[in-house]
Formats: sequence, C-alpha cells, structure tokens
Amino acid sequence: MSKNLTKRSADYSKWYNELVVKADLAESSAVRGCMIIKPYGYAIWEKMQAELDKMFKATGHQNAYFPLFVPKSLFEAEEQNAEGFAKECAVVTHYRLKNNPDKKGELIVDPDAKLEEPLVVRPTSEAIIWSTYKNWIQSYRDLPILINQWANVVRWEMRTRLFLRTAEFLWQEGHTAHATQAEALAEARQMNQVYADFVEHFMAIPVIQGLKSPSERFAGAVETFCIEALMQDGKALQAGTSHFLGQNFAKAFDVKFATKEGTLDYVWATSWGVSTRLMGALIMTHSDDNGLVLPPNLAPDQVVIVPIYRSEEEHAAVAAKAESIKKTLEEKNIRVKFDNRDNFKPGFKFNEYELKGVPLRIAIGPKDLEKGQVELARRDTLTKQFVAENDLCQIITDLLATIQKELFDKALSYREAKVTSVDDFETFKKVLEDKGGFIAAHWDGTEATEEAIKAATKATIRCIPLEAKEEVGQCVFSGKPSNKRVLFAKAY
Amino acid sequence: MSKNLTKRSADYSKWYNELVVKADLAESSAVRGCMIIKPYGYAIWEKMQAELDKMFKATGHQNAYFPLFVPKSLFEAEEQNAEGFAKECAVVTHYRLKNNPDKKGELIVDPDAKLEEPLVVRPTSEAIIWSTYKNWIQSYRDLPILINQWANVVRWEMRTRLFLRTAEFLWQEGHTAHATQAEALAEARQMNQVYADFVEHFMAIPVIQGLKSPSERFAGAVETFCIEALMQDGKALQAGTSHFLGQNFAKAFDVKFATKEGTLDYVWATSWGVSTRLMGALIMTHSDDNGLVLPPNLAPDQVVIVPIYRSEEEHAAVAAKAESIKKTLEEKNIRVKFDNRDNFKPGFKFNEYELKGVPLRIAIGPKDLEKGQVELARRDTLTKQFVAENDLCQIITDLLATIQKELFDKALSYREAKVTSVDDFETFKKVLEDKGGFIAAHWDGTEATEEAIKAATKATIRCIPLEAKEEVGQCVFSGKPSNKRVLFAKAY
Repeated sequence: MSKNLTKRSADYSKWYNELVVKADLAESSAVRGCMIIKPYGYAIWEKMQAELDKMFKATGHQNAYFPLFVPKSLFEAEEQNAEGFAKECAVVTHYRLKNNPDKKGELIVDPDAKLEEPLVVRPTSEAIIWSTYKNWIQSYRDLPILINQWANVVRWEMRTRLFLRTAEFLWQEGHTAHATQAEALAEARQMNQVYADFVEHFMAIPVIQGLKSPSERFAGAVETFCIEALMQDGKALQAGTSHFLGQNFAKAFDVKFATKEGTLDYVWATSWGVSTRLMGALIMTHSDDNGLVLPPNLAPDQVVIVPIYRSEEEHAAVAAKAESIKKTLEEKNIRVKFDNRDNFKPGFKFNEYELKGVPLRIAIGPKDLEKGQVELARRDTLTKQFVAENDLCQIITDLLATIQKELFDKALSYREAKVTSVDDFETFKKVLEDKGGFIAAHWDGTEATEEAIKAATKATIRCIPLEAKEEVGQCVFSGKPSNKRVLFAKAY
Repeated sequence: MSKNLTKRSADYSKWYNELVVKADLAESSAVRGCMIIKPYGYAIWEKMQAELDKMFKATGHQNAYFPLFVPKSLFEAEEQNAEGFAKECAVVTHYRLKNNPDKKGELIVDPDAKLEEPLVVRPTSEAIIWSTYKNWIQSYRDLPILINQWANVVRWEMRTRLFLRTAEFLWQEGHTAHATQAEALAEARQMNQVYADFVEHFMAIPVIQGLKSPSERFAGAVETFCIEALMQDGKALQAGTSHFLGQNFAKAFDVKFATKEGTLDYVWATSWGVSTRLMGALIMTHSDDNGLVLPPNLAPDQVVIVPIYRSEEEHAAVAAKAESIKKTLEEKNIRVKFDNRDNFKPGFKFNEYELKGVPLRIAIGPKDLEKGQVELARRDTLTKQFVAENDLCQIITDLLATIQKELFDKALSYREAKVTSVDDFETFKKVLEDKGGFIAAHWDGTEATEEAIKAATKATIRCIPLEAKEEVGQCVFSGKPSNKRVLFAKAY
C-alpha cells in the first residue's frame, strides 16, 4: 500500500482531504455535499457516541426521537432561528413520483402530489421539539425535561468538506426545559463542560471554553457557550456548542407552566450539540504526513498484530503465538486485530496501519519466537522496541495510557505556544499571517468592530474565554475601552 | 394515575392506540404520519438496537452511513424497486426558503432555489448504496462486503399507526455484496435466522420463518425471507425481512467483479431490515388490559421499588432499605428503579408501573422492615408474594428468567392453537372469521388465486414456511394441484 499522501507543509487542506479518503474514513457521495461514512470512520464515530451517551445519561438525560420534518409554519415560529436557517434548508414539496408519460423508465415529480404545506428537513430541532413540549408541560412538576436525540440533520451548505462541513451530518442535540433561568443557565454550562471533558479525555484535544459574541451566537440563543480547539495549521475549530435559549422558544410556541407559587411563566430552555464534525477535529489534531494518528481511547483497534514468515511452517508457529497474545490482551479489554491475510506482505500491512492510525503495532517473526520477544511500534512517535513476551501485556497497557496522555500534552503545548497576546492592529495582522493560532486581544464589544476586523483579516472572535481575566485595556481595532481579552482566529 | 384503558375485547385497535400513548411510548407529531418516540419507548428501542447490533457484529458485519437523499436518476435505476417505492416517497425539490415579500414573518419556498435534480428521501437505500459499491468492488478480493446501517427512512403511507406504520421510521438495513449466488443466499438465510433468534430470545415472540410469495416480495428481490408473528387479535405481523436480491442491483448499477478465475461477473446481493415496527409487535404480543407487559430482557427497568410509609421517620427507614436492595440487585446487573417521589401515593405508582410493564415490583413498608421481608409482585401474572430479604436477590434473578421464558411459552401456545389446517374455501372463510390466526392451506402458486382470496377475505399469504412439509394436495381456492401448505392470515 503506497500512501502518496500530500505533506501537511505542502498543502494542509489537500493533505486532509486525501487522508480522510485514503484512511477509509469517509468519501463523497452521488448527492451534492453529502458524505458516505465508511466502516472504519463509522467505528470511530460509534466509540464517540457511546462515550458521549454515557456522559449524557450520567447527567440525567434520556434519549428520544422527534420527526425528521418540520412543517414550514412551525419552522417560522421563532423568528431569529427561522431567519438563521431558512437560506440553507432542504424542502420537501411533494410526496410522490410518477412515470413520465413521455419517456419510459423515467420518473417525474407528480404535480398532483404537492403537499399543502412544505416540510423543511430539520437543520436543527428546536421548532419541532418545542411545539411538542407545549403539550408535555403544564406545571413545575413536569420540569425539568432533559432529553437528547441522536439524529441526522441537513443544512444546504454551498462549500462542503468531508466531516467538517457537509449538507447532511450526524449529531446529537440536547433539548432541555427548566423552571428557572438559573437552572437553564447551569445546564448550558454543565453540558459545555461535558463536551470539554469528552473532547479532552477521549479525543485528546485541548479546548478553550468560552462564550460566543452576539454575532456568532446560535440563531435564537440568548447566550452560546462553546469549546474551541486549534488545528495544526493554526486555524481554530468550534468543536461543540451549548445554548442558553432564554424564553425565546417558549414564547414562540407559547409554552407556559404553573409555578410552585401558582403564577404562570414561560419555560426556560437550552439546546446543545456536537456532530460528526468532531471527526474532522480528531483527524486534524493528531495526524501526520504518514497518515492518521488515533488516541487509544477512540481507536477501533488499539493494537494490530502482523505476522512475519516465509514458510508454511513458520506461518503456523507465528500465527499460533499471535492468537495467544491477542487472547491475553483481549482479556485486559484491549482491542486487538490480528491481520493474518496471506495475500499481503508485512510492509504493505505496516503502511496500512500507519495510514489508519492504529496506536500500537506488534510484529512477530520466527526469530522473535526463539527469543521470546516481539517488536512493538508506536504509531504516534514511530519508535520501535523489542519487548519480552512476558512483559508485553503490562507494557501495552501502560503505553496505551501514555500515548493517550502524550497526544493531549503535545496538542496542548502546540496550542499554548499559539495563543498570542496582541495590543495593536498591525501586530494583530502580522501574527495572524506569520504565526496563526489564537490572538488574545481587547475588543470594544461592538459588532461593527468585529465585522471590520473580519473584513480586514478573515479572523473572527472564536470566543470570550470563561477564564478571561478582568483587565483594563483598549480595543485592538478601535482603541475604545475594554475590560477583557477575547480570542480571535481564522476558523474552520 | 387512572388507566382508563379500553379493554382488548371491546376494541383491540383502540386498546393498542391508547396503550402506546398512556404508557409513554410514543405519540403523534405535528407532521402527518410521523411519530415522536418518547424516552420510555426509545429506551426499549435502544435495548433492541444494542442486542441486534451485537448479533450483526458477531456475524461479521460493520456499520456505516450513507446519505439520506437519493438523486432521482439513481432511484430510477432498478426498475422494480423504483416502481415499488415511487408512489410513496417524500421529494426534496428546493434548497432554500425566503421571506414572503407580501407578508412579514412568513417564509415561502424560493423558486430560484429549485434543485436541478429532485432528491428522494430514502425509503430504503439499495440505490444509493449500490451506486457506491460500484466504486468499491473491482475483484473477488473486495468481496464480501458486509455492511449495516442504522437510519431513518420515509415512506409516505396514507394510513398510519404509531410504530406499526409511520411515514418516517427508524430501522437498520443490511446491504451485502458477494461473489457467488450460494454465498448471498446463505447470508439472506443467516440474517433471517438472526432476526428469528433475536425476536424469540429477547422479545419473547415466537416467529415462523418462511419465504414470501412473489407478489409479497420486496420490490427488486429475487427471494424474500421473513419472520411472521401472531398478535393477540389473531392478525399476523411481519416482524423482519431478509432479501436475496440476486444480481438485480448489480446489473442496474453495473457492478461487476473479476472472479478468481479471471472472468467478469455481476455481484450477488442481499439486504435485510427490521424497524421500530418491532415495538408494535412487542406491545401487542404480551400486553393486557392493565397495560404494557415487557419481557425482562428488554425492560428498561426490570424491577421497581415503591416505598410505603406514613411518617418522615418511616420514610427514612424504608428508603434506606430500598437503596440497599437496589445496590445489591444492581451488582447482579439487574436494572432497578427506586421511585422515591414524595408527591405521589403508592397506589398511583403501582398503577403507573403496571401500565408501563415493569416486570417486577417490590413494595416495602415499616412492617416489612420488622419482618425482614418485602412484597414482590409479578407484572405478567399479577401475582404477589412476600419474600425474605435474604432470598430476594436469588429469587429475582430466577424470576426474571422465568418471566422471560413464560412470556414466550404463553405466546407460543397461543400461536400454536391459532394455526389451523384447512382444505376447503368455505372452512377457510369460516375459520378466518371466527378464529383468526394462521390458516395452513394448499395454494396453486398463482398470483391470480392469491388476489382472489385476498379480495374475498382480506387474507394474504404471510409466508411459505421454511419447514413446510411436502405433501400432495389441492389448492384451497382453485382445486389445482399443490405440494405444500402455505400460511394465510389477515395482517398488519
């Protein structure tokens, strides 16, 4: 297997596109902007889903399922949300095809099967869910409602890239309803924290938690919390968002509840989501010019065993040893693949698993059998060592934890080196151009300034960090007063 | 919680509709024919998914994800399949809404955003998947492809019922590609067997495996295997299907492969699916006039503990005991809910869990504490017993297995009593009307006879059982020769 992968330094974007396809993660489909997630890519997504789902349930959420379609009249109800998504939604207008009377074998949209009301394919489900919650909520006793949904959504993006921006994508969307503002705000914060924990501990990607500026908020939100990560090309990637929706949707759908005190009030809401976009972040954070690098916690195969042999006899002996090692490791809940395919050479297999980012590779040949050892190779550092068979299980257990930690540490060092505090606009532009990464700068809080900076540099405010310190300063663009630094960056 | 559930004997169909809603399983949505699967219903579906997913993976399948939309030109490619689904599909024709210039706040479909080619919302994914497999398959080395997808699909049904027939439903669809006819046929049989095993062992529903008659086959299939179950009203329900597709899709999408022998051949295919319809089967098979009855293997909560108390002091003592029992049971991997809500009376809770079908209920009051016992009630038999606390864990473990087995046995006895062999059409009509169930009768193998019987009685051929014995006979309708009995029934 020849990799022929474009180098990151030559063309980062091309490297990414090639890697996604060559590592068998996903590919484009016959439908504009929609991807096919291939088994290897989907296996990683399944691991992510399983961990997130556990975390959601541990914080009291239950899964449910709401319709794919949103009637136009419901879609319209919350004005900002409708405005935000109307320009990029797929619309079902008919419910039947019929034979083209003029051309045998061709189907045409049946004009007699036009829907009375067009249906929007959900770009997000607040509208359909809040029109439902209206019937579920009468009193404070019905609150909170803590529901999550795993689903596909469609946003008709004009420029798409595998995982990062696709017309259809897979995600989860949490939709909660609360009796008080404080409780809803706490929920939005909590779920942003859950996302940060997941992305850091499982994906080994450090993130900065923050708030979006008004212009970058979710359409219909009062406040948007987010986690922001930094990719190897110095561009930021929004990895997840958690929205405090205030009473906007409750008002749009007239969802009131009887309070403990006997008054009527609108319900407070949150929504929060992460998507298959996380796959893009995972790929771009750790991988190198040899291919994918996967953190052990999410790797479908954590260890691959490749047998080395010439004769049938050697093959049998090596395979027996490989099977026994596989069994021992699996007893420790380590995910092991033994690649015993006879029609591919070891070198081909080495290349393939490097490209696919399997964290550890064991090679065993006849000489190793004699010596009671195996060759163990790390994908992340590309280092190799001989390990006595007796020590193998412990060493692998330790190494998987080490790799997980070191991937995170490496990404964190990179990120930390790429946050630059800047106090004037010339330096801002220079740092952005030469170094990239996050620029911590004062901002006067106006949309006009945000727009002007974006127009001049393509950088946007990624977030106002939750941990930003209060300090006296002047806006990097307008010179007006500011009391904290926000993070600018070019972004995916 | 007052149940007010219509009795099955009074109106079975009404009973079902009410039960689905009152047990909090699902409800209708604002979108015609689309349902909302509520958390309790979804929790059962999740258990079903998890078990099926394990069985698919154990038989070598991997999950992947293909687009929601099928371009019309691909949809048309396999003629029978297109014909079968064209009349009931949702069609996306536009990709944008815009503000109505004549009415503020209203959105209209933007006529400038018409798609060049309409997109069909997948009613099933053979077309999009086989147009993809074409690029994945060159040689016999690329085969077999064994892929499954968990997804939503849309079929624009005119008459819908929660779970049983909805415009959008959730399902899994397996799509496999093989080098030989024999291998594809074996796969189709194997997956039908997997479905039978799952439905019998987890859902406690006995099924008959068989083949569909040509007129009941999946559109585009050469042979359709199925599992058929019998509901309490004597109507049959198709619980799953597994299709041998021959080379139909390979020919439609020109998918050829180089054989080991160096020739070119079309690829052999299967597809197979079960859906949220299984929820309907589960509900209808076991439940009674008091509500849902769930088999322990799929019950989200297998045991519920209800505390009985008057004073705060009693409450504290009973709750402490309940917590300790919960912990002990959970250590044995038993799913336990302790309902410690203070604003609902025990009688209300008893009713609620009866309605929701929790297999076992523990009630603990102050007197039980004194005696070192609890009251244990079975949902399926509605019987109660006092159990010494020391024996509780073992008794519950045993009882859960017993209930699982007895639910299956009961359903099997019912089904067996409802299979009637019939040799003349007058008796056929009489049995169908008076007794219902499956009628085992000879059939001459023609579609004309099938149609005539259906027109006269509404009964259809549910399947030609795999285990049907060869015997000389005459068609129950035409009197023509026949060599085996097939099963007729009215069906969902």
